[in-house]
Amino acid sequence: MKTKIVLKDADIPRVWYNIIADLKNPPEPVLHPGTKQPVTPDDLLPLFPMPLIEQEVSQERWIPIPEEVLDIYSLWRPTPMYRARRLEEALNTKSRIYYKYEGVSPAGSHKPNTSIPQAFYNKQAGRKRIATETGAGQWGSALSLGAAFFGLEATVYMVKVSYHQKPYRRILMETWGASVIPSPSDRTQAGKKILQEDPDSLGSLGIAISEAVEDAATREDTSYALGSVLNHVLLHQTVIGLECKKQMEEVGDYPDVVIGCCGGGSNLAGIAFPFLYDVFSGGKEVRVVAVEPAACPTLTKGVYTYDFGDTAQLTPLVKMYTLGHDFVPSGIHAGGLRYHGDAPLVSQLYNEGFIEAQAYHQTEVFKSAVLFARTEGILPAPESSHAVHSAIVEAKRADEEGREKTILFNLSGHGFFDLAAYDDYLSGKLVDYEYPEEKIREALERLPKVE
Amino acid sequence: MKTKIVLKDADIPRVWYNIIADLKNPPEPVLHPGTKQPVTPDDLLPLFPMPLIEQEVSQERWIPIPEEVLDIYSLWRPTPMYRARRLEEALNTKSRIYYKYEGVSPAGSHKPNTSIPQAFYNKQAGRKRIATETGAGQWGSALSLGAAFFGLEATVYMVKVSYHQKPYRRILMETWGASVIPSPSDRTQAGKKILQEDPDSLGSLGIAISEAVEDAATREDTSYALGSVLNHVLLHQTVIGLECKKQMEEVGDYPDVVIGCCGGGSNLAGIAFPFLYDVFSGGKEVRVVAVEPAACPTLTKGVYTYDFGDTAQLTPLVKMYTLGHDFVPSGIHAGGLRYHGDAPLVSQLYNEGFIEAQAYHQTEVFKSAVLFARTEGILPAPESSHAVHSAIVEAKRADEEGREKTILFNLSGHGFFDLAAYDDYLSGKLVDYEYPEEKIREALERLPKVE
Repeated sequence: MKTKIVLKDADIPRVWYNIIADLKNPPEPVLHPGTKQPVTPDDLLPLFPMPLIEQEVSQERWIPIPEEVLDIYSLWRPTPMYRARRLEEALNTKSRIYYKYEGVSPAGSHKPNTSIPQAFYNKQAGRKRIATETGAGQWGSALSLGAAFFGLEATVYMVKVSYHQKPYRRILMETWGASVIPSPSDRTQAGKKILQEDPDSLGSLGIAISEAVEDAATREDTSYALGSVLNHVLLHQTVIGLECKKQMEEVGDYPDVVIGCCGGGSNLAGIAFPFLYDVFSGGKEVRVVAVEPAACPTLTKGVYTYDFGDTAQLTPLVKMYTLGHDFVPSGIHAGGLRYHGDAPLVSQLYNEGFIEAQAYHQTEVFKSAVLFARTEGILPAPESSHAVHSAIVEAKRADEEGREKTILFNLSGHGFFDLAAYDDYLSGKLVDYEYPEEKIREALERLPKVE
Repeated sequence: MKTKIVLKDADIPRVWYNIIADLKNPPEPVLHPGTKQPVTPDDLLPLFPMPLIEQEVSQERWIPIPEEVLDIYSLWRPTPMYRARRLEEALNTKSRIYYKYEGVSPAGSHKPNTSIPQAFYNKQAGRKRIATETGAGQWGSALSLGAAFFGLEATVYMVKVSYHQKPYRRILMETWGASVIPSPSDRTQAGKKILQEDPDSLGSLGIAISEAVEDAATREDTSYALGSVLNHVLLHQTVIGLECKKQMEEVGDYPDVVIGCCGGGSNLAGIAFPFLYDVFSGGKEVRVVAVEPAACPTLTKGVYTYDFGDTAQLTPLVKMYTLGHDFVPSGIHAGGLRYHGDAPLVSQLYNEGFIEAQAYHQTEVFKSAVLFARTEGILPAPESSHAVHSAIVEAKRADEEGREKTILFNLSGHGFFDLAAYDDYLSGKLVDYEYPEEKIREALERLPKVE
């Protein structure tokens, strides 16, 4: 029985899987925030290079991965898939649990799967700089890494409270050569406006997005980059699931259920979409489970409607599950899952019944994460720990039902930057927040009106 | 041209290489600190299980790796070797630079190569607990991981100042289930004595060793474990170099020089001893370079004599290069290289001319580390960065001499726990310390007298 399932370099996927080609219904258009009419490629060109805009709307099922991107992917891809044999023993389960480990990338998560091609296409298009925002710093560090590989300047607007409270990710970005600006800053009109109103503003992801977008829109040499939500980001992440399918073949198994944590939705999409291809093309039944925090239950408690991507209402309107663009989740440790919306593609597939969702509280999630660390050795990121917990719940449920399931989940990153969260858990200081019913109700009342 | 050189699972070495079998001169005996007579296996049995004591003195060239250890090794081994193609381009060197990356282990360094077999042999011998000491926490976390895999209790005496200043490694150990005790503590006579004299003592590695040794010696169910210096520790690390030899074969190359940073000496021995086997058995010429910090220049400035392993003079006396057992190095960031002595085997081979040594200041080391991170992507640990720097120096020297060299170094760990050090470097706050000539002269005057 193999514990680690590795592929050869030659097995790195040479195409990304574009699920749009297989959707029953076409994706709903993205709307201009002012006119509320569908955005055109020209609207987006100040922000993104044309190849990424084309990928955003492409109908092609398989999109070739450029050689230059494959060359960098191959530094850590194919990533290992593990049979969680020691965890299975600890659970005394009859089910088989597998996990794909994306924490082997230099940034420690799946995010470079998209930061590398985004940097490549920007370089190719002649852009010199990339601007982006980051909260706790996962995405900002992945983009800084991508920029370093392709000789681009990276400017990362980092939410000010994180900039000061979580300096390690900031230093990592700077080590890779990025400029990290605490947001709100005086570099942008958006930032200045906030600072005039509140010089002590701690910032928010919404404000940081506004600053990064303004930076990119007002400088010809500069693009904007996003680490989740958009179609092309989800596309790039499908290397995860494409590899998993080969690894499953290697051990002669196939998942009954594929699990990913879900903030914006890109790591879930990355592992699950290639399996949904098997569903769409017939012959396979696979449950796909999106796991979200109970404190930010976008799929399980949100509504499916047009909303802004940011608090400040500057981004285009997208149809998605949302808790309302000004919903502010409680301060759970899984910072990467604190987003009011979900990727439009994940939202549509959830709405159409191809994806299920589960929401868990953070103490039960950390309990599972610690069990995982003590049996499998790897310390999971708080975000990924949601997937760990769901896999354990699924295995226990199967045992109760007298069934044997094949469970696959995405261990999207390691937790070396999140040890304060483990400390809180181990010392009994970790708190769970109530389901934010009232806050959601209020935020949903402020949804934009779209015909 | 291959960038990442990976081996198959079947290529994990099934034996460790014991260099003692090939030494021209037998190793000098280890002496009892009281009697100054050679220690016997019985003297060591309260501290170590018999298989480790046997390995410490074995004359066998190849020592089989137990299946149970191979089973855990295979979770991350074989580790990748990389051709540092992007670094070579940045240096515009004609030399080929390769590095072995040991940071892929769950603890992030090479240390589990020995913590896993140490935990295994202790489990097999019926011990229930392992006690050890740790400074910054690299070794303590590796041992905690090993203990978790084999269901042993681990008690780690952590230097009190690090316990408070560097909580992340402490939390990592606790997440894996270890008890971490700030040292000096009131758990041991040694600790109590220190606290009586100085209730505010910040501790030292020497004190922590005393506490761990006392803990193990006074409890029958408990062993002591050491993360470097001892012969059996260096033995376990040879999986690194044995894999490298296969990887070099894979690309049809062979190193002119093999480089490792050197604190106690185990990661250097791990990568270099299997290449020294080729030297001893004839036919190959390989330079082996030990890289140490200028602030703790044990090989380059120390003397080759009998000395204690700890400040408190509780350990056996070993013949080694030493700066004096009470030499306290300046507070450089490469905490793992702040040791007054070197492994007896490394010392002997240096004395016999099979190993060279180089010492560098930390700012030049960090400059190289940042260049490495920006070209190769991986963030090196401060200790490993000494090897990075030496490789760069070797390549530049070869270019000046109009030669092409094949350079191999051990990237023994990642730097995700060391970002404060990078911050100091990037913000210009990192200082270099003078060669500690006077401090060494004074410490050497306090060397023990051995006939």
